[in-house]
Amino acid sequence: MDTATPAYDALCARHLRLHRLGHLQAIAGWDRAAWMPPKGSEARAAALAELAALLHGLRTDAALGELIARAHDEPLSDLQRANLREMRRDWRLATALPSALVQRRELATARCEHAWRTQRPANDWAGFVANFREVLAVAREEATLLAEATGLSRYDALMDRFEPGMTSAVVDRLFGELRQWLPGLIQRVRERQAGERVRVPRGPFPLEAQRRLCERVMRRLGFDFDAGRLDVSTHPFCGGVPEDVRITTRFRDDDFLGSLMGTIHETGHARYEQNLPREWLGQPVAWARSMAIHESQSLAFEMQLAVHPGFVPWLAQALAETFGAQDAFAPDNLQRLLTRVEPGRIRVDADELTYPAHVIVRYEIERPLIEGEIEADDIPALWDAKMAELLGIDTRGDFRDGPLQDVHWPEGLFGYFPCYTLGAMYAAQWFAAMRRERPDLDARIAAGDLQPVFDWLQRHVWSQASFWPTDELARRASGEALNPAHYRAHLEARYLG
Amino acid sequence: MDTATPAYDALCARHLRLHRLGHLQAIAGWDRAAWMPPKGSEARAAALAELAALLHGLRTDAALGELIARAHDEPLSDLQRANLREMRRDWRLATALPSALVQRRELATARCEHAWRTQRPANDWAGFVANFREVLAVAREEATLLAEATGLSRYDALMDRFEPGMTSAVVDRLFGELRQWLPGLIQRVRERQAGERVRVPRGPFPLEAQRRLCERVMRRLGFDFDAGRLDVSTHPFCGGVPEDVRITTRFRDDDFLGSLMGTIHETGHARYEQNLPREWLGQPVAWARSMAIHESQSLAFEMQLAVHPGFVPWLAQALAETFGAQDAFAPDNLQRLLTRVEPGRIRVDADELTYPAHVIVRYEIERPLIEGEIEADDIPALWDAKMAELLGIDTRGDFRDGPLQDVHWPEGLFGYFPCYTLGAMYAAQWFAAMRRERPDLDARIAAGDLQPVFDWLQRHVWSQASFWPTDELARRASGEALNPAHYRAHLEARYLG
Repeated sequence: MDTATPAYDALCARHLRLHRLGHLQAIAGWDRAAWMPPKGSEARAAALAELAALLHGLRTDAALGELIARAHDEPLSDLQRANLREMRRDWRLATALPSALVQRRELATARCEHAWRTQRPANDWAGFVANFREVLAVAREEATLLAEATGLSRYDALMDRFEPGMTSAVVDRLFGELRQWLPGLIQRVRERQAGERVRVPRGPFPLEAQRRLCERVMRRLGFDFDAGRLDVSTHPFCGGVPEDVRITTRFRDDDFLGSLMGTIHETGHARYEQNLPREWLGQPVAWARSMAIHESQSLAFEMQLAVHPGFVPWLAQALAETFGAQDAFAPDNLQRLLTRVEPGRIRVDADELTYPAHVIVRYEIERPLIEGEIEADDIPALWDAKMAELLGIDTRGDFRDGPLQDVHWPEGLFGYFPCYTLGAMYAAQWFAAMRRERPDLDARIAAGDLQPVFDWLQRHVWSQASFWPTDELARRASGEALNPAHYRAHLEARYLG
Repeated sequence: MDTATPAYDALCARHLRLHRLGHLQAIAGWDRAAWMPPKGSEARAAALAELAALLHGLRTDAALGELIARAHDEPLSDLQRANLREMRRDWRLATALPSALVQRRELATARCEHAWRTQRPANDWAGFVANFREVLAVAREEATLLAEATGLSRYDALMDRFEPGMTSAVVDRLFGELRQWLPGLIQRVRERQAGERVRVPRGPFPLEAQRRLCERVMRRLGFDFDAGRLDVSTHPFCGGVPEDVRITTRFRDDDFLGSLMGTIHETGHARYEQNLPREWLGQPVAWARSMAIHESQSLAFEMQLAVHPGFVPWLAQALAETFGAQDAFAPDNLQRLLTRVEPGRIRVDADELTYPAHVIVRYEIERPLIEGEIEADDIPALWDAKMAELLGIDTRGDFRDGPLQDVHWPEGLFGYFPCYTLGAMYAAQWFAAMRRERPDLDARIAAGDLQPVFDWLQRHVWSQASFWPTDELARRASGEALNPAHYRAHLEARYLG
C-alpha cells in the first residue's frame, strides 16, 4: 500500500513486532517470579536471553536509523511525530552500547546479584564490594557512552533511561531543598506522635482472607480483573502487559498491612498500564511516560488516596469484615497506624515521611559514584554519615540493613532511586490540581465516590501515555512543571494539620 | 572453533535457538489456558502468532536444507546421526507446506473452532459443516503436499506428523482385529458386572482437598514438583517444557474421580517429559518419540498402574484420609468403580474397555474423509451406524454428543485419534515386558514399591527419547514391535479374570 509516510509506516510495523515479542518476554518474566519451580530456572534464563538478544538485534538494526531519518521529513501528524520522537529515543538508547559491553554488564550484574543474596544476610561488605567494583566499572563505561550519545552528564545519562528530561541539576535543587526541611519535620511529627496511643491489630491474619481483602480493595480502586491478575511473588511488582497486567504481592500471616498497602501501590501502577490508550498500543507513544510518572500513580493510590482520612473509614470497615472486629480497626486508630512516623534502616519498610530521606541518601551516594568523585569503598562511611544526619540513626557496622539492603546497585540500576521521590512529589501535585479543579474532592472521597480521582488521572495522565514530554505533561495536567511545594504542603497538612 | 562436523554443529546451534524460543511459546500457551484473563486474549494471540511466524521462518530457512545435506557426509556418532534424522524430518514437515496454505489453515480452523464452541451446545450440525468443509479442504491439500514429500498416502502423511512410521495399513489390521473381539468382550463384561453392587462416593468433595489429593498422588507417582506444577484449566493437558512441566486438571465439587484420574494420566505424560535425557535437551533427538508412545506413558500410569489391584488399596486409603471414611472407599468397591464398564456417547468420559470403540469410530470416518472417499455430509450417518455397531448405542439426531464432541476435527487435527489406542496397546505391552523381566512385579506394586515400574520406563522409554525409530524402540524395550495381543490379554485378565 502506498502512503505518504512509508518510512514512518515501516517503523510502526517494526515496533508492533517488538511489542508482540515483548509481550512474551513480560509474561515469561512474570511467570518466573510468580510460578516457576526452581529447576526451570536455567532453561528459562536461556530462553529469555535468546529473546533478549533477538529483540536487541531488532532494536539496533541499522535500517531503523535510516527509517527514522527519512520519517523525519514525512508529513506526520502530531501524534505520529510524538511517536517518532520516542522511536528515536529508543533507537539511541539501544544503539549507544556495543553488544560486548551489554554482555559484560549481564555477567557482572548476574555475578554480583547472585552473590549478594548470601552476602547480604552475612553482612559481608568486603565480599560484596569485590564483585561490585566490576558492576560499577561497567556502569561508568555505560554512562560515558550514553553521555556521548545524549550530551548529558554521565549520571544524568543513566537517570535519563528511567526519567527522560530529568537532570541532576534539577534533582540537586529539589532534594537540596527537601533535605533542609525534612529532618525538622520528622522531628516535630515524632514529638507530636510521642503521646499518641496506637493499637496494633492482633493476628494471625489467614492468608486466604488477606487475598480476598486485597482483591476487594483492588476492585474498589478500579482494577479490571478481566484484564489482569493478582498473584504472589517474593518481591512484589507490577508486570505483564497493558492488555493483561499481572501484579504480585506477598503475604505473612502475622501482618496484613504490608501486603495490603503493597497491593494498593501496585494497583496504582496497574491502572496506569490498564488505561494506556488502546488505539496507540504497540507503538512507543503508548508507553507509560516515565518511572517518576509511574511512581506518581502508585503513590497517588497508596499515599494520597488509601491513607486519605475520607477513605480510611471504608478500609477500616473492610478490615473488620475480613478479620473480625478489633479495636485496632477503628478508623481513627487505623489512620494513626497508617501515618505513624518511625525512622528505620530499611527503605521498603519506611513510612511516607521518612521514605524520601532514604532516597536522598542513595542519590547523594550514587551520583558522585557514577561521576567518579567517590569509589565503592567510600560508600559505608557516607551511608553512616547521611543516615545519622537525615534520620538520626546509627548504622555503623550494619551493611546488611545498610548499603546492602537494595537490589538496585548489585543489578547496576543507577539513576532509578530519585524516581521514587519525584513520583511522590508529582502525586501531591496531581491531588493539588484535582482540588483546584474540584473543591469538593475531599468530600467526594469521604462520600465514597472515587470517580473524580480516576477521571482526572485518566484524562491527564493515563490517556496521555508518552504523547508529551514529562514537563509538558505536568504543565497540561496541573498548570506547572514539577513543583515540590505541593509535596511539602501535603506532608505538613497530613502530619501537622 | 574448527570441528570435523561444521554443518552438523551449525544445525545444532539453530535447533538450540528453536528450543529456547519454543520454551516461551510453551509457557505463554500454558498461561493462556491456565491464568490469562479474557481481555488478554487478543494481544496474546497476536504475540503467539508473531513468534510462530518467527519459528516457522527459522525452521524453513533454506540454509537448513543445505546444512542437512552436508551433515549427512560428516563423521557423525550414532547419537548425532539419530539427531540428524529427526532434524531432517522436522525440516521436511516444516517446508512441505507453503505459508499461504498454513495461513489458510489458521483462518479456517480458527473460524471453525470458534463457531463450534456455540454450535456444539446448540446441536447445530448444519452450521458446523458449513465451516468444516473449508477445514477439510485445507486438510486434504495439506495431506496431498505431505504425501508428495513423504511418499505416504494422504491420511498416512497426516498421521505421520504425530506417529512417525505408522501407516493406515497397520492401523487397519490392528483396529480390524480389535473390532472383531471388542464388542463381544464388552458384552460379556457387562453381563458379568450386571449383578455387581458398586457404591458411589458421596460428595461434595471440597476443591482444596481434591487439589491436595492430586498433589499427593502425583508425588507418589514420582512427579518432580521442583521441575513442574499442577494448575487448573478448562481442558486438562500436559504443557510447559521438559525442564518445567505444567500439567492441568479441572475440579468439580460433586466428583473427584475425573480430576484424580485425569491428573494421574497427565502425570504419566509429565514423567516422560521430566525424564527426557537432560544432556540431549535442545536437540530433536531429545523429543518424546511420538504421540502413541506419549499416550503409552499416560496410560501406563492411569490404566496399568493406578487401576492395578495392588495399587488401589493405597489409593483407597488416600481417599479416606482426604475426604473422610466412606463405604465407597473400601478397596474392593473402589476397584469395581474404576473398572466399571458402561457404553456411553462421550469419548473422554469412556471407561478403559469402551474407549477404543470411540477411537475406531473416529478413525474409520476420518481416514476415508481425508482420502476423499466420503464427504463431510456423510459423517452423521456413519457415526450413528458405527456407534450402534460397536457400542450398541443409538446416537441419531445427537450431534452435540456425537461427531461434534471433540475439538480435533474443528481444529483440523486429522490422524491423531489412533494414537490413543495405539498408546493403550503399547502400555499393555510394556507391562507384559516388565512382568517377564520381573516376575514379582505385581507383588512389588502391591507392597507399595513402584520403583521397578519407574525404572523400567526410565531405562526403556524416557531415556531413549527419539534415539530409535518407534518400532526399534519397542523391540529393544519389549522384544517385539507393537503386538496387540498384550492389550487383549490385559483387558481379558482385568475384566474377565
